[in-house]
Amino acid sequence: MNAEIISIGDELLIGQVVNTNAAWIGRELGALGVPVTRVNTIGDNAKEIIVTSRRAWKEADVVIATGGLGPTHDDISKAAVATFFKKKLKLHKPTLEAVKARFAKLGYDKMPESNISQAMVPEGFQVLKNDRGTAPGLLFYNAGKTYIILPGVPQEMEFLMTGSVLPFLKHKYKNKLEAIKHRTIITAGIGESSLAEKIGDPKTFLKKSTILAFLPRAEGVRLRITSHGKSTATVNKEIDRVEAIIRERAGKYVLGTEDQTLAATVVRLLTERSKVLATAESCTGGLIASKITETDGASTVFYGSIVAYHNHVKIKELGVRQLTLIEHGAVSEETAIEMAEGALEKLGSDFAIAVTGIAGPDGGTKEKPVGTIWIALAERNAPTLTKKLQQDFGRVGNRERAAAAALEMLRRRLLGNDAA
Amino acid sequence: MNAEIISIGDELLIGQVVNTNAAWIGRELGALGVPVTRVNTIGDNAKEIIVTSRRAWKEADVVIATGGLGPTHDDISKAAVATFFKKKLKLHKPTLEAVKARFAKLGYDKMPESNISQAMVPEGFQVLKNDRGTAPGLLFYNAGKTYIILPGVPQEMEFLMTGSVLPFLKHKYKNKLEAIKHRTIITAGIGESSLAEKIGDPKTFLKKSTILAFLPRAEGVRLRITSHGKSTATVNKEIDRVEAIIRERAGKYVLGTEDQTLAATVVRLLTERSKVLATAESCTGGLIASKITETDGASTVFYGSIVAYHNHVKIKELGVRQLTLIEHGAVSEETAIEMAEGALEKLGSDFAIAVTGIAGPDGGTKEKPVGTIWIALAERNAPTLTKKLQQDFGRVGNRERAAAAALEMLRRRLLGNDAA
Repeated sequence: MNAEIISIGDELLIGQVVNTNAAWIGRELGALGVPVTRVNTIGDNAKEIIVTSRRAWKEADVVIATGGLGPTHDDISKAAVATFFKKKLKLHKPTLEAVKARFAKLGYDKMPESNISQAMVPEGFQVLKNDRGTAPGLLFYNAGKTYIILPGVPQEMEFLMTGSVLPFLKHKYKNKLEAIKHRTIITAGIGESSLAEKIGDPKTFLKKSTILAFLPRAEGVRLRITSHGKSTATVNKEIDRVEAIIRERAGKYVLGTEDQTLAATVVRLLTERSKVLATAESCTGGLIASKITETDGASTVFYGSIVAYHNHVKIKELGVRQLTLIEHGAVSEETAIEMAEGALEKLGSDFAIAVTGIAGPDGGTKEKPVGTIWIALAERNAPTLTKKLQQDFGRVGNRERAAAAALEMLRRRLLGNDAA
Repeated sequence: MNAEIISIGDELLIGQVVNTNAAWIGRELGALGVPVTRVNTIGDNAKEIIVTSRRAWKEADVVIATGGLGPTHDDISKAAVATFFKKKLKLHKPTLEAVKARFAKLGYDKMPESNISQAMVPEGFQVLKNDRGTAPGLLFYNAGKTYIILPGVPQEMEFLMTGSVLPFLKHKYKNKLEAIKHRTIITAGIGESSLAEKIGDPKTFLKKSTILAFLPRAEGVRLRITSHGKSTATVNKEIDRVEAIIRERAGKYVLGTEDQTLAATVVRLLTERSKVLATAESCTGGLIASKITETDGASTVFYGSIVAYHNHVKIKELGVRQLTLIEHGAVSEETAIEMAEGALEKLGSDFAIAVTGIAGPDGGTKEKPVGTIWIALAERNAPTLTKKLQQDFGRVGNRERAAAAALEMLRRRLLGNDAA
């Protein structure tokens, strides 16, 4: 049992829009027990739609296509799919009435002519009513296989998937569905290959139905355990078993599981200790504060941040001394320390982390090349700790790494193992 | 001349990671003059990699594969590609030295064994040196066709694309490259089909080398003009011509044209006007500042932000009056105004945007449910503008929408059409 996705739209190929629909559908189908084995992203091109539909219809039990169902000249998906299945388009009156009613509700005197096309349906296709737009979803079932095409607007696609497609598949394929579960273990402070050495050869402890994947990120390496089987209970039990092995072998490098980010871990640790954080950010420009406040419950452990992008803000709002900036520069250990201690003082928190650096692409010098970043961690009644990063990962990468390193410094302080 | 992308990784199929790499590569190749005609997303599966490589190698001039080049057991892409091209893997000494040096620099006593695999290269492949990680990129050129495989970590992929792949393609295919340009016109206040009626049949005014696409979104319909041709100048002239026709026919519904991101547009508009921005953020917690500072050149137009997550920071750092918080609450039009005006005053900028709201999932009341967000835009010597959002899209969605709405308010103010 498998599914393929066909994402249709020039905007996806030219990178104007990121294909979030495919990720969403992949998650939902996986949760139902239908693994997605391929996503084909193609343009608004009839020949490509036909060629790709033919391949997918051959290779997969379920094909879900999205995009190109609108009323304008560039929406050609429906006609192409009808051509592939050798079906004629016929007017579907209930859809025409629904589209007309929609326009009346929006205050139009009459429906624009082109919307009649929205009510044309290939013969033999089921119509999936779309309450969030004018283009219905279309479903064709034949000899155990299903082909579905949905609008590309995410809200409409999600509405039709949730309300029509998933219930249809759940019913139609009930004897073929397996439980598929994933769990992700978050680590920090250790590289991919060193972590792999600690964990050992996965073949020695994984069943055939279980996969272990290493997912490196700036924040740290994530380990995803994926398992499939007859029931959710047996699959979860198998995942528990593998998680226990990994936790034992990776020890202190394990932060937690699932979608727990480094920021979420820090929020949890602060909460457990009833401590409050503030940040002072220059090159990260609010990124650390943003990561922390993305987490539920951040409001009890985070006072705020002074984003001191410009030097006058460092002086005025954080109390960094002009002399420090002149003698050592904005990107220096001294400035980082004064920023962190200034934030602690100014915002009255228990901890403050400060970051100042050269994110790039411009602003680097021979002495301080792009990627030079100073981090300081200040704590009430404790010495301030500093750390320097010096490697260029590009503007976005430098910011992400700086944020991760700062949060990791705090995480270790909270766990009482600065030295680790 | 065309390219296909092969994105390899189970995490993409199960929807754990959104495929941003493909969008990034699509943009860069398009800018070079190589249109991407297909993105194949597949799992970490040798058979799939071979089958998909065979198809792509047949259909495209350039194939760019990403993912599965790491040092762990689940990284199988290189071996699969070598199998497809019937090439043996051989040790590439300079790569081994580079990987060893990398580990030494990171403070390791010795390189973990598994990294030897990083230096194994299929015979006949060029090695693209990766300064941001241990896995080099690999390039195979034969009879006018190029196959490239890169690591899936975005910073590493981008580094290799920018430094090695794009220069290679530019040189190797210089006689085949065309100029390809896109421009997107933003409209609001009119539906897709009504807009299409106003614009008329595109066939009557589009050249064969030009495409007009309708992109419906919640905020309004965007119209993308894409054109290709011999030189950038002729292509831009053609796009100017089509834009003029659309602007004339769509009239007041046209808001303007779009750059890459809203934050980048705001940075550009501020730069053109020599104006400086500051932000005061509560529920967005630094997200707006982070989006702005992610853009190159933000340092000349952005002073900083007061992230006032806790009320005492609103009072102390932004000068919000205690009485305002008591009488109207932290999430109110009055508080948003005082936050924006306080930031303007405190940081000395020309504009300040402030956001306060209930991101959720907790903290909502009957009067102010989750998703209630107030935005204020203050400008030196101009009245402060406010806007209320009230719909729940989940914590992350609420924060993203608030940031987008705030930036959009500023964008319109900078363009002089607040009322639109």
